[in-house]
Amino acid sequence: MVTPKNVKVRVYNFGNGTSDGSSAMKNLLGSKGANLAEMSNLGIPVPPGFTITTETCSEYNQLGKDKVVSLLMTEVKLAIATVEKRMGTTFGSAENPCLLSVRSGSRVSMPGMMDTVLNLGMNDNSVAGLIAKTGNNRFAWDTYRRFVQMFGGVVLGVGAISKEDQNPFEEIIEKFKKDKGVELDTELDAEDLKRMVSDFKALCEVQTGAKFPDDPWDQLWASITAVFDSWMNPRAVYYRVMHQIPEEWGTAVNVQAMVFGNMGETSGSGVAFTRDASTGENIFNGEYLINAQGEDVVSGIRTPQQISLQGSKKWATLAGVSEENRKTQYPSLEELLPNTFKELNTTQAILETHYNDMQDLEFTIQEGKFWMLQTRNGKRTAAAMVKIAVDMLTIGMIDEKQALLMQEPSKLEELLHPVFDSEAIKNAKVLAKGLPASPGAATGQIVFFADEAHKYTDSILVRIETSPEDLEGMNIAKGILTARGGMTSHAAVVARGMGKCCVSGAEKININYKTRVMTIGSHVFNEGDWISLNGTTGEVYEGKIKNKDAELSADFDTIMNLADKYRTLGVRANAETQRECQNAIKFGAEGIGLCRTEHMFFEGERLARIREMILSTDEAGRREALNKLLPIHRNDLKEVLRAMENLPVTIRLLDPPLHEFIPHDLENQKEMALEMNVSVETIIQKVDNLKEFNPMLGHRGCRLGITYPEITEMQARAIIEAALELKAEGIATHPEIMIPLIGTVKELKLQKQLVKTIIEKVFEEKGDSIKYLIGTMIEIPRSCLTANQIAEEADFFSFGTNDLTQMGFGYSRDDAGKFLPIYIEKGILKVDPFQVLDQEGIGQLIEIATVKGRSFDPALKIGICGEHGGDPSSIEFCHRIGMDYVSCSPFRIPIARLAAAQAAIKQPLPNQVENLYLSIEKEIPAPI
Amino acid sequence: MVTPKNVKVRVYNFGNGTSDGSSAMKNLLGSKGANLAEMSNLGIPVPPGFTITTETCSEYNQLGKDKVVSLLMTEVKLAIATVEKRMGTTFGSAENPCLLSVRSGSRVSMPGMMDTVLNLGMNDNSVAGLIAKTGNNRFAWDTYRRFVQMFGGVVLGVGAISKEDQNPFEEIIEKFKKDKGVELDTELDAEDLKRMVSDFKALCEVQTGAKFPDDPWDQLWASITAVFDSWMNPRAVYYRVMHQIPEEWGTAVNVQAMVFGNMGETSGSGVAFTRDASTGENIFNGEYLINAQGEDVVSGIRTPQQISLQGSKKWATLAGVSEENRKTQYPSLEELLPNTFKELNTTQAILETHYNDMQDLEFTIQEGKFWMLQTRNGKRTAAAMVKIAVDMLTIGMIDEKQALLMQEPSKLEELLHPVFDSEAIKNAKVLAKGLPASPGAATGQIVFFADEAHKYTDSILVRIETSPEDLEGMNIAKGILTARGGMTSHAAVVARGMGKCCVSGAEKININYKTRVMTIGSHVFNEGDWISLNGTTGEVYEGKIKNKDAELSADFDTIMNLADKYRTLGVRANAETQRECQNAIKFGAEGIGLCRTEHMFFEGERLARIREMILSTDEAGRREALNKLLPIHRNDLKEVLRAMENLPVTIRLLDPPLHEFIPHDLENQKEMALEMNVSVETIIQKVDNLKEFNPMLGHRGCRLGITYPEITEMQARAIIEAALELKAEGIATHPEIMIPLIGTVKELKLQKQLVKTIIEKVFEEKGDSIKYLIGTMIEIPRSCLTANQIAEEADFFSFGTNDLTQMGFGYSRDDAGKFLPIYIEKGILKVDPFQVLDQEGIGQLIEIATVKGRSFDPALKIGICGEHGGDPSSIEFCHRIGMDYVSCSPFRIPIARLAAAQAAIKQPLPNQVENLYLSIEKEIPAPI
Repeated sequence: MVTPKNVKVRVYNFGNGTSDGSSAMKNLLGSKGANLAEMSNLGIPVPPGFTITTETCSEYNQLGKDKVVSLLMTEVKLAIATVEKRMGTTFGSAENPCLLSVRSGSRVSMPGMMDTVLNLGMNDNSVAGLIAKTGNNRFAWDTYRRFVQMFGGVVLGVGAISKEDQNPFEEIIEKFKKDKGVELDTELDAEDLKRMVSDFKALCEVQTGAKFPDDPWDQLWASITAVFDSWMNPRAVYYRVMHQIPEEWGTAVNVQAMVFGNMGETSGSGVAFTRDASTGENIFNGEYLINAQGEDVVSGIRTPQQISLQGSKKWATLAGVSEENRKTQYPSLEELLPNTFKELNTTQAILETHYNDMQDLEFTIQEGKFWMLQTRNGKRTAAAMVKIAVDMLTIGMIDEKQALLMQEPSKLEELLHPVFDSEAIKNAKVLAKGLPASPGAATGQIVFFADEAHKYTDSILVRIETSPEDLEGMNIAKGILTARGGMTSHAAVVARGMGKCCVSGAEKININYKTRVMTIGSHVFNEGDWISLNGTTGEVYEGKIKNKDAELSADFDTIMNLADKYRTLGVRANAETQRECQNAIKFGAEGIGLCRTEHMFFEGERLARIREMILSTDEAGRREALNKLLPIHRNDLKEVLRAMENLPVTIRLLDPPLHEFIPHDLENQKEMALEMNVSVETIIQKVDNLKEFNPMLGHRGCRLGITYPEITEMQARAIIEAALELKAEGIATHPEIMIPLIGTVKELKLQKQLVKTIIEKVFEEKGDSIKYLIGTMIEIPRSCLTANQIAEEADFFSFGTNDLTQMGFGYSRDDAGKFLPIYIEKGILKVDPFQVLDQEGIGQLIEIATVKGRSFDPALKIGICGEHGGDPSSIEFCHRIGMDYVSCSPFRIPIARLAAAQAAIKQPLPNQVENLYLSIEKEIPAPI
Repeated sequence: MVTPKNVKVRVYNFGNGTSDGSSAMKNLLGSKGANLAEMSNLGIPVPPGFTITTETCSEYNQLGKDKVVSLLMTEVKLAIATVEKRMGTTFGSAENPCLLSVRSGSRVSMPGMMDTVLNLGMNDNSVAGLIAKTGNNRFAWDTYRRFVQMFGGVVLGVGAISKEDQNPFEEIIEKFKKDKGVELDTELDAEDLKRMVSDFKALCEVQTGAKFPDDPWDQLWASITAVFDSWMNPRAVYYRVMHQIPEEWGTAVNVQAMVFGNMGETSGSGVAFTRDASTGENIFNGEYLINAQGEDVVSGIRTPQQISLQGSKKWATLAGVSEENRKTQYPSLEELLPNTFKELNTTQAILETHYNDMQDLEFTIQEGKFWMLQTRNGKRTAAAMVKIAVDMLTIGMIDEKQALLMQEPSKLEELLHPVFDSEAIKNAKVLAKGLPASPGAATGQIVFFADEAHKYTDSILVRIETSPEDLEGMNIAKGILTARGGMTSHAAVVARGMGKCCVSGAEKININYKTRVMTIGSHVFNEGDWISLNGTTGEVYEGKIKNKDAELSADFDTIMNLADKYRTLGVRANAETQRECQNAIKFGAEGIGLCRTEHMFFEGERLARIREMILSTDEAGRREALNKLLPIHRNDLKEVLRAMENLPVTIRLLDPPLHEFIPHDLENQKEMALEMNVSVETIIQKVDNLKEFNPMLGHRGCRLGITYPEITEMQARAIIEAALELKAEGIATHPEIMIPLIGTVKELKLQKQLVKTIIEKVFEEKGDSIKYLIGTMIEIPRSCLTANQIAEEADFFSFGTNDLTQMGFGYSRDDAGKFLPIYIEKGILKVDPFQVLDQEGIGQLIEIATVKGRSFDPALKIGICGEHGGDPSSIEFCHRIGMDYVSCSPFRIPIARLAAAQAAIKQPLPNQVENLYLSIEKEIPAPI
């Protein structure tokens, strides 16, 4: 299409082996639109159509419906004319009507989140035209029926009034079948469907209070704007929040000529993956249904058939279907339409090679003619993600960097999670078998409605089938079990995306939503009963089953080794116990970045001694209690240092306010009084004394060490004595002592002097010494701004991004629940800043501190130990500004290694920021 | 003195009309040392001596005593030789001994805070020499006695064991007098004093466990290092904290030949002011004692005589002394030694003209020969400060800028403080009359010990005399009353410096520290009894007396008008009531910078409606309560807007968390339940519901307006309706709506949209409109960092430096009491950052926000409304970075006007900072 310069193009055509766009234009055309254009360019048959750009969606949100429709009018009219010409059809014609699909399509796939309308253009005129053209009366009315149902549901919002009600369209269909005494939709004839169209329209008119739109143009504009509107619907918003997709991206709208999979026994629709999305094996696989439209396959309403013979046989074994039944009732496409299968197989190979990644395909066969409707990089399990990359790397299809960039770091966590304990599983009772829709193990209490998933700490969501409305509940539940639906059903696709265990299509189970009961044969399960799922095998077990750690594959090791080859950022763990340290090393930690000593004080003898110290009224009393704590603390530290032999261990001195060690309820205060041999009044008075209005901003961190130097002294002694004792055993340690909550350089200077004095004393006492570092947490805004001063006293900086986020935003993490969800819902925040580092604001503080700290000491060691240290986008930021390491929970270490490698591939050198901040500081004279 | 290059000079000589230094070298030589050098250069007779530099004090604190003594050795020896040569005396000589004074002297005067040793060089040898030289046996032994007493007290630390005990040296003197049956020290003869020296030495040896040092060199080094040590003594530390004097400045040590005011009836010592330090009148005045050393005059132990005849007569009238008695017992210097008086008078005129400021002089007359010991700019009351400047300006002695720079802004507050209500004072009973030592009125409960001043909210410190140890208590007390001491006694000088009401030398009162009783005639007062003081007249009243506002002088207006002429910074007030607004205007406010609407909600009907809103379970209920509040709120706002006719008024929307409106104790909860007609459980549950871990970082500020838009809507409506109603009355208003606690631009955008929508609606309803602004508080670190974004939506910025300090430091203001005092004591912080803006850290955030905000809109209006808006050094900072205005409490407005003028004189143009921060931001790509 030739367009005058300076005119904004909002519509891009494709089809007939040509197109205005390409796969490089995903941001503008969305993923689906860009890939349709690309396929068309590759000569793969796609139904002709056009894409309205994502930018138009943003215009829509800013300018409103009327304005955008008028802006689009000319281009859309022209594009429709092109489709009509290419298909030889006419919009709304009574001879050869042009029917359209209208689909959303954003930059990244958001399966089922937004609206789709098919068979658009149907009315009393076009139904006649469709009959005239196909000679298939039933098909024409069925198409009309489907359109009204879909348009009514999606565009007009006609649906169930309460969650216990059935969908009213489905209710009407059931009634028709019951009245006629048949079981299948296909047993209804043209006349039935014609009456059904009329009933559907009546239903729409009752619920909306307006006439059902018959004009195809009215239908088209209503559908296009409905797609734009669906970008802002709650489930799409929730999905974006969960997947950190910016609202600004918007969705494209793909309008395309309809092709029909439901025109008889040589028609059908299907979805396929170029490799196994669950295991990653290089096996072309997929599902289809004869005489059906695409949504019939993915909706899970009918059990779909396998595309390949191999797949079909495997499925039958798993589903317990005999070979006889399989051949007759569930034949593969390879058996049924071998030529079409061949064409499909060739196409999948072309597409995988073209995109260098596993593809997720949608196709339709209309009376034997094969059409591709969509291709995209396929969603996959973590295991498949790893295996596919390693396989493709092995055959030289991709290089190492590509293999790493193909990984989605946060998915790795599913590989690390526990599976069922093999002993426990031996005695477990299998209740039913479904499809292994998403691997992993889950055990929990039954809930039947997604919005009740939070009822139990561990819940299993049990549904006949799931729908996009269930998304939030699915995320909360530990696992998902559905009675209907295949490997590509909504439940299966979404669960895999979440890395959540799912068993789908377990047809033996029966669910009654009204009575909230699940029956499997004679077994009756109520809400709250325990069941367990194995998403890797599809088995459903009775009761609670013990878990055990996952085993990691050789492919996983390959990817991790590759990651280590490319990353420049160190990865450490946050850990305090021997077991955590062992996990950390297993997952590849290169040290401990945060050992929170207070975590060592919360139990038994340790807690009693801390409490004794707190109850002491003078320094002598505190010292006495601390002296008793010293040997215990030293031993706890020895365990950690021993586990981390030869590796650095950053040990943070006591951080929380003291009141955290004293119970706040009378019951426990009484118990403590008894234990400590003091009156309960003493304890209540102490609690009162320690009470703070804002403990987060109160007497904690180094403020404790400065007001009670004896605490710092005891800890410094414990650390160095532990290290020296290990040295005597021949074990090398690298303790790094970290002073928390520094806001001014003088705090650090005083605490450092204290620590050094004690250490020198211990060295003298023991007649031996070791190397050690003294550094600080950077977690207060002021410490970022004065980092050049603080660097003068610090061997290292470690960013405490949790507190920095709290103070930088002025959000108390414990209280933000009252407004943060609303902030995310209203788009004030894109994501929870406690999960994903706010690079725009808090990131500036980190960058200022890094630049200023390094301005004093260019080699200053800098890391991060807040929870963001395990979040991929935050890790990328840490790499970019030139940190030395990140530290995170042991289970997130592989994620961090991978994210660090990806960051290094994307940007080999850290930002080259000149020391700009420092020149500003010069302008500010010192006070007085 | 010629010194080789690159050799650090630590000792500067002066005397005999020459010197190594000058008054320009105050930082290096301290104020006293620099002025001694200057006087010597001017040809004014000063006893020869030398100054050890302030830098040496810093070396002393870093390197320790031994190192610094060895560094000083050669120079000090040389300097002593010079003094010996100039005086013709020899150190420790048995013929003509060289006696020295050793005094501290820092950059700014810290009266009585540090140590002084006089008559140094006395031992059994030199006493013989002094007798030989003067032929005055008694004088020699008295000098020896004085030396041992002072050296013992100051250098050796010999003193009272408990605070109820008398000083043991004084005890010995009392005992001598009692044994001999005499009343005055002067009645003791040489033999008595000789025995006393022996007893004093014995006392020292008992308390210190070491021999009293007889070697003059030992005495000298001990005294020099004692002066250095005294820089770090607690009262000096406290004084520095109070006056924001950096520890790094250090003190110089002035070593000087002794001259003796106690060599008989033609000798004496005195202090004088070139003008009246209390009223500012151009009258040379001062006090002296014949046959006394300087410390006798200022210690308040003897009642001193007036220098001038006029002053003497005035004093006698005030003190109730008959002319007969005055002439015989208290003659003026003018009468007694007219030639010396003339010389002194000439000298004071030279010095005032030389320094262009009122001088505080110390002099000694040794056998008729006049010596100047010190000159410095004199401390004065606020009234004197204003009058002196205006008088000097009038005669052209100084220019306008000098007049302004001579003002100490924070002193002005004393002029604005209430005085006694003239009706109430009529019936008040005068108990006693003392000297009007420091003006103002005070009423409070009696305490007898400085460290108990905090016992009552309003306390009056009643002492026989005060000492530097009492400093902290004097600051806490509302007023000070002493039984002894003149206008230049410790109590008087310190109280004037503090701007605190003081009556000194009320000799009719009797104080018994042991029984804690004050008797005046037959009246007995116990600790805790109420009395009142008039520091302007010297009267002491029984009981509590009502206060009223101060009246401002014409000189005050002159200075204020001058300030307005020079300042470029606007000055606004923080105010919510009509009365506060009237005060604000009276003191010169140019608008309201902060009207905290929540302050309007804490009483009666308003509180009930807010509580009704909080207890509502849904939006409809909240709206109903808010609708009832609307007319009341509108009227309250009208009052403020009416009072500020034609001036801008910044109205801040609701800021505190909602739980602040609900009682937290059961008693009041029950009352509220009754009033609101709900169960007490409902209220308790609501309190529980609203409870937050860190309310400071919780659900408040714009977070309320976003979660409950109806609150913002009601307030926007109330403001605009109030303004429109006033417009109808012909009153012009300029409302500026301020959205609090903005952390992200989207918060501001949403709240602004809401406010604008409501306002447009009100305009439509009323058929009229006005101009208004919508801006924001900048009080969250993140908002500073993203100020360029926020500026896109804001008509103005107003820095909320209280919250910014809380979040920037991570200090909860309500909880910091547990560690802030310790932080200041340990020198971690120089001052309380909630009183004086932390320019080093928080200042950077403010500067970043200013630079970034103005990068979007160079004309962006920027102000400050935190409490720092009334602090002079913080105001200077605000001027320097180019703010448009400061806003402070009405009583601080004159201070702000003056501080702003001084800032403008010191630095006419704000800092020229390029937009450096912005270029860094470009380096940080947006997330994802």
